[in-house]
Amino acid sequence: MTKQEIIDNIQRKRSFLCVGLDTDIQKIPPHLLKEEDPVFAFNQAIIDATAPYCVAYKPNLAFYESLGVKGMMAFEKTVAYIRTLYPDQFIIADAKRGDIGNTSELYARSFFEHSRVDAVTVAPYMGEDSVKPFLAYGGWVILLALTSNKGSHDFQLTEDAEGIRLFEKVLIKSQEWASDEQMMYVVGATRGKMFLEIRKHVPGHFLLVPGVGAQGGSLEEVCKYGMNEQCGLLVNSSRAIIYADQTETYAETARHEAQKVQEEMERYLQYTNLK
Amino acid sequence: MTKQEIIDNIQRKRSFLCVGLDTDIQKIPPHLLKEEDPVFAFNQAIIDATAPYCVAYKPNLAFYESLGVKGMMAFEKTVAYIRTLYPDQFIIADAKRGDIGNTSELYARSFFEHSRVDAVTVAPYMGEDSVKPFLAYGGWVILLALTSNKGSHDFQLTEDAEGIRLFEKVLIKSQEWASDEQMMYVVGATRGKMFLEIRKHVPGHFLLVPGVGAQGGSLEEVCKYGMNEQCGLLVNSSRAIIYADQTETYAETARHEAQKVQEEMERYLQYTNLK
Repeated sequence: MTKQEIIDNIQRKRSFLCVGLDTDIQKIPPHLLKEEDPVFAFNQAIIDATAPYCVAYKPNLAFYESLGVKGMMAFEKTVAYIRTLYPDQFIIADAKRGDIGNTSELYARSFFEHSRVDAVTVAPYMGEDSVKPFLAYGGWVILLALTSNKGSHDFQLTEDAEGIRLFEKVLIKSQEWASDEQMMYVVGATRGKMFLEIRKHVPGHFLLVPGVGAQGGSLEEVCKYGMNEQCGLLVNSSRAIIYADQTETYAETARHEAQKVQEEMERYLQYTNLK
Repeated sequence: MTKQEIIDNIQRKRSFLCVGLDTDIQKIPPHLLKEEDPVFAFNQAIIDATAPYCVAYKPNLAFYESLGVKGMMAFEKTVAYIRTLYPDQFIIADAKRGDIGNTSELYARSFFEHSRVDAVTVAPYMGEDSVKPFLAYGGWVILLALTSNKGSHDFQLTEDAEGIRLFEKVLIKSQEWASDEQMMYVVGATRGKMFLEIRKHVPGHFLLVPGVGAQGGSLEEVCKYGMNEQCGLLVNSSRAIIYADQTETYAETARHEAQKVQEEMERYLQYTNLK
């Protein structure tokens, strides 16, 4: 999916919501456990309920891998389900991979050829040759820049001799590897005014923003400081939507929660060129 | 496995070799392709042939994931095979994972409870709460410090205002999270004298050293600069052993290659307390 197609989808659906499919078998409604594949059954219902209100889905691989082979089958079925029924959705494999070149190449093949997602999240620590193999498949790389968690302070904010922080160096350096047509950055929603500093380096890029909802980030603040003229944001919400209700009415409640977020997003889109 | 048990195994087997099970279906001998699970069949033969000469196995997850569900089954069967027949081998899942706390927790559960490996390689970029969940399972974390690839120069060597490089900061900071009884570091074999600087920060820790062989690192240099009194090294070789011969005699050749490395290692062990 091209950058322009993502923008078109945001404009058409009045939403830049990404629904995080962090499906935990211990948190889904108990009645689903009698299904042959409870995780996939849960995802199907969540996707059907939320698709009108979002432009992207982001399954986090950890949730699927933790269930072994059955979990990976649920992941693959979920991606195929979205691909087939909702082809306008941008699919992000949240995997945070990164290895030496020949190994990253295998991860890239796995996600882009085998699972056929649109984007993979990648960790920058190992540098250029750990990232480039993902780009070679023509898919999107979403590089970790400034994450939402407490531990992000340990290394990401470290200043070099010229006062450039590590996350800034990641933003600067990685622009040598790909343009904003193929690269996005992960910036946590808990970052507030830091978005202004991010935007100095990457004014035109899309940012994938986790951390709204359960992690305490504010959508209003993210938009105030992080939006650009073409929106430039995919804001992820996982737990606040998919686990808003852990009974048989979970899908209906998820729809309602996704719609609420979409309506709030529609208001903020007035401040962009997509109004 | 405790640190002392690893040391005892090194002393008993006169080897600190880790065999990397980077099993690529496109590189294994063609006659194996008629097996029901060619990857597992290859691994079994390689393990049987090399077990006397090594103390650890390191399957890299990328190779298994790239084959989808079948690949993950081969990974799990491989771990179970080593566990059952060669319980003195240290098993490293080379996965380079790292995510926010609740997600790293799932990866940890996946590797330590489900697959039952001894150690997982972890990327440090997201900091403390991305690493600690792996420690909570009592297993080993092998944290990326200074990797063997060219891209390692992009960020790992960046100096902060006090002249401390990022990989050094990782070594320093992470010692607040765990001792050398539960943490190791990845240091590429291509680093030569840099091992001296690594050892200033982590004199007693084990280092996992990839990059000997196909990537051009020298075992002699690694030992000269990186060894400590209790050896303190697990040196990985993948391609130079497992693909030394791509015909029907592959296992015999792998045995021969592993033995050659073991014999060289035995010479270097004379300079430790394990002689």
